[in-house]
Amino acid sequence: MTLFRVWAPLAANVQLLLDGSLVPMSSEQNGYWRCDCSSAGHGMDYAFVLDGGDALPDPRSPWQPYGVHGRSRVLDHSRFRWSDAGWRPPILSSAVIYELHIGTFTPEGTFDSAVGRLEYLQQLGITHVELMPVAEFSGAWGWGYDGADLFAPHHGYGGPDGLKRFVDACHAAGLAVLLDVVYNHLGPSGNYLGRFGPYFTTRYSTPWGPAVNLDGAGSSEVRRFFCDNALMWLRDYHFDGLRIDAIHAFFDLSAVPFLEQLAGEVKRLEAHLGRSLVLIAESDLNEPRVVTPTEAGGYGIDAQWSDDFHHALHSVLTGERAGYYQDFGTLGDVGRALENAFVFDGRRSLFRGRPHGRKPEGLPGWRFLGYLQTHDQVGNRAKGERSSRLMNVGRLKIGAAIVLCAPFIPMLFQGEEFGADTPFQYFTNHEEPDLARAVSEGRRKEFAAFGWKAADIPDPQDPETFSRSKINWAELEREPHTSLLAWHKQLIALRRRTPEFADGRLDQVEVRFSESEQWLAFRRGGYVIALNLSQETRRVPFAFPGALVLASEADCIIHKTSVEMPSDSVAILRVINNGRDI
Amino acid sequence: MTLFRVWAPLAANVQLLLDGSLVPMSSEQNGYWRCDCSSAGHGMDYAFVLDGGDALPDPRSPWQPYGVHGRSRVLDHSRFRWSDAGWRPPILSSAVIYELHIGTFTPEGTFDSAVGRLEYLQQLGITHVELMPVAEFSGAWGWGYDGADLFAPHHGYGGPDGLKRFVDACHAAGLAVLLDVVYNHLGPSGNYLGRFGPYFTTRYSTPWGPAVNLDGAGSSEVRRFFCDNALMWLRDYHFDGLRIDAIHAFFDLSAVPFLEQLAGEVKRLEAHLGRSLVLIAESDLNEPRVVTPTEAGGYGIDAQWSDDFHHALHSVLTGERAGYYQDFGTLGDVGRALENAFVFDGRRSLFRGRPHGRKPEGLPGWRFLGYLQTHDQVGNRAKGERSSRLMNVGRLKIGAAIVLCAPFIPMLFQGEEFGADTPFQYFTNHEEPDLARAVSEGRRKEFAAFGWKAADIPDPQDPETFSRSKINWAELEREPHTSLLAWHKQLIALRRRTPEFADGRLDQVEVRFSESEQWLAFRRGGYVIALNLSQETRRVPFAFPGALVLASEADCIIHKTSVEMPSDSVAILRVINNGRDI
Repeated sequence: MTLFRVWAPLAANVQLLLDGSLVPMSSEQNGYWRCDCSSAGHGMDYAFVLDGGDALPDPRSPWQPYGVHGRSRVLDHSRFRWSDAGWRPPILSSAVIYELHIGTFTPEGTFDSAVGRLEYLQQLGITHVELMPVAEFSGAWGWGYDGADLFAPHHGYGGPDGLKRFVDACHAAGLAVLLDVVYNHLGPSGNYLGRFGPYFTTRYSTPWGPAVNLDGAGSSEVRRFFCDNALMWLRDYHFDGLRIDAIHAFFDLSAVPFLEQLAGEVKRLEAHLGRSLVLIAESDLNEPRVVTPTEAGGYGIDAQWSDDFHHALHSVLTGERAGYYQDFGTLGDVGRALENAFVFDGRRSLFRGRPHGRKPEGLPGWRFLGYLQTHDQVGNRAKGERSSRLMNVGRLKIGAAIVLCAPFIPMLFQGEEFGADTPFQYFTNHEEPDLARAVSEGRRKEFAAFGWKAADIPDPQDPETFSRSKINWAELEREPHTSLLAWHKQLIALRRRTPEFADGRLDQVEVRFSESEQWLAFRRGGYVIALNLSQETRRVPFAFPGALVLASEADCIIHKTSVEMPSDSVAILRVINNGRDI
Repeated sequence: MTLFRVWAPLAANVQLLLDGSLVPMSSEQNGYWRCDCSSAGHGMDYAFVLDGGDALPDPRSPWQPYGVHGRSRVLDHSRFRWSDAGWRPPILSSAVIYELHIGTFTPEGTFDSAVGRLEYLQQLGITHVELMPVAEFSGAWGWGYDGADLFAPHHGYGGPDGLKRFVDACHAAGLAVLLDVVYNHLGPSGNYLGRFGPYFTTRYSTPWGPAVNLDGAGSSEVRRFFCDNALMWLRDYHFDGLRIDAIHAFFDLSAVPFLEQLAGEVKRLEAHLGRSLVLIAESDLNEPRVVTPTEAGGYGIDAQWSDDFHHALHSVLTGERAGYYQDFGTLGDVGRALENAFVFDGRRSLFRGRPHGRKPEGLPGWRFLGYLQTHDQVGNRAKGERSSRLMNVGRLKIGAAIVLCAPFIPMLFQGEEFGADTPFQYFTNHEEPDLARAVSEGRRKEFAAFGWKAADIPDPQDPETFSRSKINWAELEREPHTSLLAWHKQLIALRRRTPEFADGRLDQVEVRFSESEQWLAFRRGGYVIALNLSQETRRVPFAFPGALVLASEADCIIHKTSVEMPSDSVAILRVINNGRDI
């Protein structure tokens, strides 16, 4: 017996197409239709027919073996044999996150092939793996942000069972798994939701398509769709948490914001399951309310990405000042980020043409993720270059030390740990010729505005753009990759064994720097991280005896009240007596 | 010496047109232009010329003697001789507010003629007068929500000095004065702001025109414009507070919402001036955050209009169930409003097609205004009929008793206190023929959708529609107006002398009712308000000895455990012993 149920409030008649015959569905409250079908079971294909029209995939299809336009397939979650009974994830405040994209993480680009790399991640010291979106999207490859069947793991990655095997294997390796979910829009291809109900609204718009209807008529059922999606990944796929894409594209004037509802529902599932579940938001709002507990008037999201920290770090390490980097570029900004999470806490932003953000009073550092690279910061560049192509090895090591010693939850983007040379470019595989052309041209136009020549922009639809973006694990055998990997391992190991680095109290972070001499030092408990970004050897001053714990260059020399450091180097020192000043 | 200053960030050149000659202005930071002009002074006409174009009125014009399209006039606020030194307004939680529209409150329709009625308001027991918008709008008359020069009191009402005389006279009569300000859109005629800068955005829209740019590039200066406007009314015109129109049409994703910024700036001015200033929002959001103090994560607005209470009351008293009244109509809804402020505190709304609102946990009743009528609830009806045309005198008295004994700040709409027969219809006086026609046709179309014939809809542009809406004070000589006025006076006097009625603790309100017998009783401290809406005499039960304080009908009879009440009557009883049950 299988229950088929679909929300189609505008339809006068809904039928289930199963085994070549049309089965009538009966109307329920609030626009739902249902049909209990004794002949249906796991693995059977089906579709819905609204008012005698086309056969459409189920908006909540659990499995799309033929892609976004094809039939949906019945999935019985109880058939999978999990081996992770008793699994408890490491807590988020002590996490080291690794963002990965299934399609490019391994040559095969599947869930199963990624399992082969879990031991590597475990040895690197990673605690949480974060998967870029896996919901069924148009074509055989893509970043995943164009998902159309939000309940179905992409068939090309290995479908539902492949994903379950991956999560199960992660748990067996002691790794928690987070999933990136996109609730602010749907992809341009295969999105049939609007035929079923008012999932979208024209009252607001996003850069990627119509905005989701979170506060208009019918929004209760639309929210149900997205909340149920979140609960499904956590319950049926055993994910340990979700990363919610671009919440700044949620338009929602309701008294109980969607995010708060989602956080509340996830907390209730957490209590029910008895294991910790976390929500991490991508937010461009610099709005502390997002990660403030609901008891204190916030939305109750556990943590958020912190682009200000990234931008501050990236711009001092690369010297880049274009686009949003125009708001950054000083060591003072890096210091502000370390002490305050938001560089823009109400300060005026030139890039935005207005003041931006608000001081995150009282929020601990582990409400924020800190990173030098993400899929966005790499992939949204015209040519998808990683930091390894934009700075020397010394600076890569400095960036890693800051990220991994900062008061934030550190995150690495796949390959960052060894300074991968391969790019991560924007790739798509849309099948509709018009859409394919529009995406290729759109990309060229976007960068033409910044002075790029069309010929220099990789074509997102070119299969080479995809394969060029795959991690080349053979690089690990060569320098500087081998020593970069070792450096990251050392830093992660230091962070994980040192409680001071997980201390979230931002008011305990002390930063000193000289803009003219281009050095900076910051203190975390009994440790000081000192770095020299100048082209000369510098003495970074401090006022206590220290011992060298780690240094990126052999010739870092400890003096009585300073550390002498070569150009583009970083050192981690331990305070010997309990001096307060650095 | 007069300083002219204007924000025109897109202009390459700005000139001041003064006395027939063009004076160059110099560019300042952030897109401002200035000119210190020694030859200019109070009463001189001027305009701005952007890039050699038309002469435009000053966006911040303090005086538009020739209407929205004409020259602006220099105003020296220091010339007015105020007589209200030492004025301190009554506190908001004990207020009885009277909403009035200058154009229809008196036959002359001016600030000065309204002064002649202040003694009447004082004797009625009013504490706060709330003026519908007075900022310069298109034409000689209108409701005021189409304001185009937000800093200039309408020339037809008497301009800046007329308004100051009015406020001064209110204070002399012991009356506080609030002003209705519209910051969510500008009127369709005379709105030159878009020529000066990015005041509006196309990212969002309102039913009345382009949305104000509160969170995009340049929004800091746009917010400055509106905040400075608020501060001007409070500082230079001595207003005691503002009513902020339709905050649900503010679209604002910034970390410090505009409303919170405005509330903060007003609180700082309050401290500076040493007298209390209040902000009241019109909100359709049922979002407690609006009137929650900033310390508790709210926006810090003092109080908000409460339409749920109105709708619950109106629908039980009139039997109307169309439009938004479909969500109301039971005594249970009236009870929920009395105990909870919001009837929709997360419950599903049929009218909205979604759950609506949130429980206002811990907020006192005086964060909400309670009313049976407002300019909107009367004027947005096809024919602008007041409650006096929709219910009998008995029910008018019931409505008044509930409003004036409820835990909310009571508000009356001009003429309500005597059951005025005159309507308050939608009237405009646009001069542009196309706009005039569009407004007339728009009104007809809007109501055609509800089955109205065009001929039955008053034409907003017909001068008769305006004059028909003027209060006819001669009605006061006749019944039932004389006794309705007396009833309101008795209730207001009772409220003002009885501390229990100003007690804001909603959890102290006890309500009992019988839907089938159509009676309801609610308790406020030592008082019980009992009403019978059935067509028969009813015994409303209670469990303590009570004494009659006020009754709308002579034949209300107190029994030992009940009060016997004729159809459509209300009685206010005092508890004799300290029994807790009613």
